[in-house]
Amino acid sequence: METHKQLTIGLFGFGVVGEGLYKVLQQTPSLNAAIKKICIKNYGKKRNAPASLFTTDKDELLNDHDINVIVEVIDDADAAFHIVTTALKNGKNVVSASKKMIAEHLPFLLELQQQTGRSFLYESAACASIPVIRNLEEYYDNDLLHSIKAIVNGSTNFILTKIFEEGLDFKQALVLAQQLGFAESNPKLDVEGYDAVNKWTLLLAHAYGIIESPENILFNGIQNIHTSDAVVAKAKNQQIKLVAQAQKIKNGKVSAFVLPQFVKQNDHLAFVKNEYNGVVIESGFADKQFFYGKGAGSFPTASAVLSDIAALRYQYKYEYKKLYHHQPHELSNAVFLRVYVSFDDIAFVPRERFEWIEEWHAQEERKYLIGVVSFDELKENNWWKENNTSLILTPDPVIEDIEIRKLKKKSLELAGIL
Amino acid sequence: METHKQLTIGLFGFGVVGEGLYKVLQQTPSLNAAIKKICIKNYGKKRNAPASLFTTDKDELLNDHDINVIVEVIDDADAAFHIVTTALKNGKNVVSASKKMIAEHLPFLLELQQQTGRSFLYESAACASIPVIRNLEEYYDNDLLHSIKAIVNGSTNFILTKIFEEGLDFKQALVLAQQLGFAESNPKLDVEGYDAVNKWTLLLAHAYGIIESPENILFNGIQNIHTSDAVVAKAKNQQIKLVAQAQKIKNGKVSAFVLPQFVKQNDHLAFVKNEYNGVVIESGFADKQFFYGKGAGSFPTASAVLSDIAALRYQYKYEYKKLYHHQPHELSNAVFLRVYVSFDDIAFVPRERFEWIEEWHAQEERKYLIGVVSFDELKENNWWKENNTSLILTPDPVIEDIEIRKLKKKSLELAGIL
Repeated sequence: METHKQLTIGLFGFGVVGEGLYKVLQQTPSLNAAIKKICIKNYGKKRNAPASLFTTDKDELLNDHDINVIVEVIDDADAAFHIVTTALKNGKNVVSASKKMIAEHLPFLLELQQQTGRSFLYESAACASIPVIRNLEEYYDNDLLHSIKAIVNGSTNFILTKIFEEGLDFKQALVLAQQLGFAESNPKLDVEGYDAVNKWTLLLAHAYGIIESPENILFNGIQNIHTSDAVVAKAKNQQIKLVAQAQKIKNGKVSAFVLPQFVKQNDHLAFVKNEYNGVVIESGFADKQFFYGKGAGSFPTASAVLSDIAALRYQYKYEYKKLYHHQPHELSNAVFLRVYVSFDDIAFVPRERFEWIEEWHAQEERKYLIGVVSFDELKENNWWKENNTSLILTPDPVIEDIEIRKLKKKSLELAGIL
Repeated sequence: METHKQLTIGLFGFGVVGEGLYKVLQQTPSLNAAIKKICIKNYGKKRNAPASLFTTDKDELLNDHDINVIVEVIDDADAAFHIVTTALKNGKNVVSASKKMIAEHLPFLLELQQQTGRSFLYESAACASIPVIRNLEEYYDNDLLHSIKAIVNGSTNFILTKIFEEGLDFKQALVLAQQLGFAESNPKLDVEGYDAVNKWTLLLAHAYGIIESPENILFNGIQNIHTSDAVVAKAKNQQIKLVAQAQKIKNGKVSAFVLPQFVKQNDHLAFVKNEYNGVVIESGFADKQFFYGKGAGSFPTASAVLSDIAALRYQYKYEYKKLYHHQPHELSNAVFLRVYVSFDDIAFVPRERFEWIEEWHAQEERKYLIGVVSFDELKENNWWKENNTSLILTPDPVIEDIEIRKLKKKSLELAGIL
């Protein structure tokens, strides 16, 4: 058999993922990969590895000519950016798990890959153990992607599952998630949707060749979901999920967002419970595909990092085929969304900015409406995130620009107004 | 950007898959792949492609030095074998969809790949649009696979779904499947499990490095499933599926088979309905993964063939890593299976060959028992397929050799015999 490149690794970070990776590498000698040095922040802690492996000097790794692979699994986005870019410039291949850093610096990192010709792999940054980047990049390369819908954040999905199945309120569910290690002590990144939109930025690049800064993508988290919203969902035989979605619309562009959404029981995403992730891909030829697996945790993350390391033996690189070899897609705001909005007081909901309203429900404590609102309205204003207001998309929420008049007329007729 | 190899294709077969592929290639010019010639059996039929593309002379393709890729999607296993082997020997890369041919000739085809150094890809032969071979080969390369369980045959899954959900009997469901194009006019290959075990042969090679002839794998189809079996399943809140399964056992070997199985509602495979396929992979680090998609049909198959063609631009080859770079696994018969057996007359069921029997049920027309039987007993005898007897595995059916005594004692105690 052919022999493959010997990989000599410099590892940044020895937290749960780094240590998991160290153990996994020891159990897979066939990989022909060895960690030469591990850079940590401080020597203080006791580590389950020989002391001689550790250093606090990053240049000991970045300037070592023997080291041909830098693996970075640290928690500091700025430091990660410095490490990744220096390593690429120094001619090393790089594996990173820093979704936030990659999402925020993607254009620069693309340029650097082209300049240096080095591999930069980050499968673990999207859905941990689900090989979604690799499959989008390789397998759906030539197939027309109609849409991709996913649950990409395990913490929020765990919290929503507990609210839904055990009737916990948001705070109780969050505390439980923290106790079980599914949410950070500062949960803002997960709970308010930042983590999900960072991951979505990466997947938009590989699915559609769209390079967009996360702050330009419409998103929210689950911080405003009420137990009463779960009650409404249950009555409709639906669930509430934080859904990242992108779909091709008739103008040839792509509508994309990360928002809470009502999901029907027969939707594949309804199958995704607790800390799991799931991705549904609809395409012209392969039809509907569903990938499901653990989206967080030390071993699932380490396993994805390891698969990237293994791919380096074969000089694997992302080709960003949708970006460079096809006509890349663009994002479009020219759509409308059918939304559920629950609120304490109607004064906080600007009814006049809705295209039309289909349902009103006044319950004792909490009220809600269902109506249609433009994408731009949500993108440009924040009333729907404020004053304890909760906005959740209805199933199949996207209404295209060209359909809006006809639907509006029909809706007003139904209401007896026209 | 780098330029990639121009692919000049010789296509064998212009049935639904071949024609689907032709259309798809016309819609993806970015692939840099063109069909130069199409070999068909006879000129008789009207074809939706220029007449100048067609020939009935296979050597026109196999001996053409311009043609660097042979794609073979014909229905004749012997002819496919000749085409694939000749093409590889002539220095061409080959994409094939002939599961039966590949399963039966895998050792020789492995040798030929090593001798010629050419690529031989066959993703569409396993689960059509689900990229399971590629993921097993690439992504789970270094992860310890505890088990892989799958529904790999769409026709039988369609029939079982109809029996289960609409109360049809086997024959009615089969006729419906044939009317809808989900089963061949001669359904034996699908219905009796031959197609499933052929696919399982391929997946065993990529999952575990096991190279075994399909006839040496314990298998059956769904031809003996009765509506009354579906009634029992429903009463237990379970479904019946034709499950292909392989799992590591404590002796370090692998237990593998393709048999009908009761599946609990919370099993991922219960989610797989109608003509869809699904694969559940349990591994040491990535935990549980689930892949779901269309396992048959012209476009899903064509899309998998296309992904293989696309991979040839990058000189992609299966490395058969589990076989060549790891210690390959072996199959083991040293297990016992907990089975449900339904029958018309107990005279046809050799009770004395069971390790023990846990349940007896005598209903008006059809009776059944649940008991434990050795793997060898099923492998060496056929009573369980004959005389209208139906054998279905219970959920988690595998009992290891080393557990059998303890379990037997416990079971006899429960029955009041010990």
